[in-house]
Amino acid sequence: MPHKRRVYFISDRTGLTVEALGSSLITQFDIVEFQRITLPFIDTVDKAREALAEVNQAHIDTGQRPLVFSSIVDDAVRAEINKANGLVLDVFERFIVPLESELGQKSLHLLGKSHSAGNVKDYNHRIEAINYTLSHDDGVTHRALDEADIILVGVSRSGKTPTCLYMAMQFGIKAANYPLIPEDLEANRIPPSLLPHKAKVWGLSITPDRLHQIRKERRPDSTYAALDNCRYEVAAAEKLMRQTGIPFLDSTTKSIEEIATHMLHEAHLVRRVY
Amino acid sequence: MPHKRRVYFISDRTGLTVEALGSSLITQFDIVEFQRITLPFIDTVDKAREALAEVNQAHIDTGQRPLVFSSIVDDAVRAEINKANGLVLDVFERFIVPLESELGQKSLHLLGKSHSAGNVKDYNHRIEAINYTLSHDDGVTHRALDEADIILVGVSRSGKTPTCLYMAMQFGIKAANYPLIPEDLEANRIPPSLLPHKAKVWGLSITPDRLHQIRKERRPDSTYAALDNCRYEVAAAEKLMRQTGIPFLDSTTKSIEEIATHMLHEAHLVRRVY
Repeated sequence: MPHKRRVYFISDRTGLTVEALGSSLITQFDIVEFQRITLPFIDTVDKAREALAEVNQAHIDTGQRPLVFSSIVDDAVRAEINKANGLVLDVFERFIVPLESELGQKSLHLLGKSHSAGNVKDYNHRIEAINYTLSHDDGVTHRALDEADIILVGVSRSGKTPTCLYMAMQFGIKAANYPLIPEDLEANRIPPSLLPHKAKVWGLSITPDRLHQIRKERRPDSTYAALDNCRYEVAAAEKLMRQTGIPFLDSTTKSIEEIATHMLHEAHLVRRVY
Repeated sequence: MPHKRRVYFISDRTGLTVEALGSSLITQFDIVEFQRITLPFIDTVDKAREALAEVNQAHIDTGQRPLVFSSIVDDAVRAEINKANGLVLDVFERFIVPLESELGQKSLHLLGKSHSAGNVKDYNHRIEAINYTLSHDDGVTHRALDEADIILVGVSRSGKTPTCLYMAMQFGIKAANYPLIPEDLEANRIPPSLLPHKAKVWGLSITPDRLHQIRKERRPDSTYAALDNCRYEVAAAEKLMRQTGIPFLDSTTKSIEEIATHMLHEAHLVRRVY
């Protein structure tokens, strides 16, 4: 069995950004199978040497030059990683020089300035959004809906909860969600408590096949999961949303990130960056 | 009042990656104040022209060349953005060429290959982790703890819930959490139901001052929030964790991303990439 080509994400902080960047770039090379490894908190020359040894060992083990996506602020630490027997693409190195030139000043070369850990106001706003969203999941309360930035509706298992949590966590959005239950579908109306807030109500839909697939994993052989029932619920929910003038998005082939970003974009909500 | 320098994050998909990358890079220039704008889903030449007009207008309005961090796969769309009166740094353009050369093949130049929207198995794993984490928040159940990848303990408001949710959402980790309540602190032991799972129990701590600040926002003038009580709880919780051999992390000056990444790293848990 041939070894998969190794891809390293090496960062002096969490590695989240190089991981996202590198992962996205390597999907452009479908024919190659990769094994991904993230090495976070590589912030000293000693740790860089250990990382370097691991990368070089991977080269020997797999017989292929590893790819290394890195983000290292310190020049001495980065110099170690740059010695790797592989292709090293460092985002800091490649972008900081044109930025320094454009802005006419040297960069601070300081660690740990991302994700606004130090900003108490931003942190509190984010935590408040997460708490609000948790306490307004699945229609558990009608209180304080005027505070919501957005309210999602949709049939059970259409993706409301993960989308709301992501919007809160990533963008600091207070996101409530309400299931469209059979009672709503029969009456062909949204939950009455949402009416005063209709301008910020958005819908999620899904194909009946995918809904069936998701529901049957949780409750096999139930009416709830039956394809016929999924067909009925989705059709009724879409009809309700169309007639009520609630814009909705099909979640079927979208990631949580894509659904959340689409909704905020359409709703013209400001996304914070943490 | 002088205009803030404008920074655009322009992407043919969600823009999350260029937003994270660019935001991190501009924090290296503390003296400059920036206004950040994200334009996602710029995937046609027409949309690129609109984005271009907005960037060029910002140049006129602010009197300063905007910075543009972009990620555009399509050459024609990217060519429009590259015409901007500003500094355009496109991650796709800058990284795909060395990758093509290293891998000895042309990139697919396909859109929407990130965040594994299309991979049902990955998607299900992620949703399952989120659901598990939600249903194991704040010690609400002792069931199925053997399924947890990690179990966090700490005093109320030490950051357990956001950390667990982030680990589930970002890395597909099943993360339970239990508050250390006064009863546990007095008895100087972890909740008994956690004993069989001690190897995966990790602690969060926080400085008493910060805990006091957080708690008093929620319950001003309460014993719960009083600085003396916060001092007692933190000291007792740290003593308990030290004596029980539970490794713990101080969350005070760390972002949710940093806490989550540190914990997974220390616990040697594999982080998935979505």
